[in-house]
Amino acid sequence: MGKTRITAPEGLPYVDMEREFDAPKELVHRAHLDADLVKQWLGPRKYEMVIDRFDPRAGGEYRYIHRDAENEYAFHGVFHSTAIDNMVQTFEFEGAPGHVSLDTAVIEDADEGRSRIRSHSVFMSVADRDAMVEAGMGDGVEDGYNRLEELLAKQQPVAAGR
Amino acid sequence: MGKTRITAPEGLPYVDMEREFDAPKELVHRAHLDADLVKQWLGPRKYEMVIDRFDPRAGGEYRYIHRDAENEYAFHGVFHSTAIDNMVQTFEFEGAPGHVSLDTAVIEDADEGRSRIRSHSVFMSVADRDAMVEAGMGDGVEDGYNRLEELLAKQQPVAAGR
Repeated sequence: MGKTRITAPEGLPYVDMEREFDAPKELVHRAHLDADLVKQWLGPRKYEMVIDRFDPRAGGEYRYIHRDAENEYAFHGVFHSTAIDNMVQTFEFEGAPGHVSLDTAVIEDADEGRSRIRSHSVFMSVADRDAMVEAGMGDGVEDGYNRLEELLAKQQPVAAGR
Repeated sequence: MGKTRITAPEGLPYVDMEREFDAPKELVHRAHLDADLVKQWLGPRKYEMVIDRFDPRAGGEYRYIHRDAENEYAFHGVFHSTAIDNMVQTFEFEGAPGHVSLDTAVIEDADEGRSRIRSHSVFMSVADRDAMVEAGMGDGVEDGYNRLEELLAKQQPVAAGR
């Protein structure tokens, strides 16, 4: 079982996810907004990550491509808000144009200097949600968050006396 | 009964709307993308409409205010896509910050030179959807679309012989 709690409620067009990180919430937030960091963790490990556009501000656009020797999967959307307690953006897989979801997330304090990201994605239909889950959304997120965990561990200053 | 068919399905976070106009779809589309036109129809007739920002392109932002002598209601969001068959934007009422919806619409041909707009809004929860409906979303849209109908009638060239 992965470290990310993923819920796709029956009959409702949502995916909810929750994951804790052993890092302050500000670092987790920065890792979502700095293209050089995003490039190092977002998405499955097996793909090369190419960031085409990444402008993390209200009204900014993003577009990125996951690719291997055979395939390319491109995604794009716009940022509605990037606040740590109100991250909101649209998301569209270019392989299914016109099927857009709204991804929202908050990053909050957890116990002992840890932090927690809670995301809530809403899809245009339950069928859209199901298609995304069946395409491996959960595994992709788990893989990406594991990479983010490794990246955060490298960024953390080692505390004196540890 | 209004001319706009509005559906809010039980237990699902959607609002679906459908309305026909006696105008070509291109004119209806333009009335959604030209700030000078939007200002003349969007929202209830009883409010003054102030457009603060309106940049109708992928990644562009909008913000407008409906106001009367006592109150101001501000709304903002970003455009994800503005194509006539794939209009997608976020929507947030500033009186309920953090409650964002994704509004999608297509404008298509109907019979006899008419056109039809079909919109599908998805909310972060059924409670959010219900709150928007209870706040008078339906009446506001009906009133706005009636004004759009009047605006389109003024824009149409009078056909020869009519």
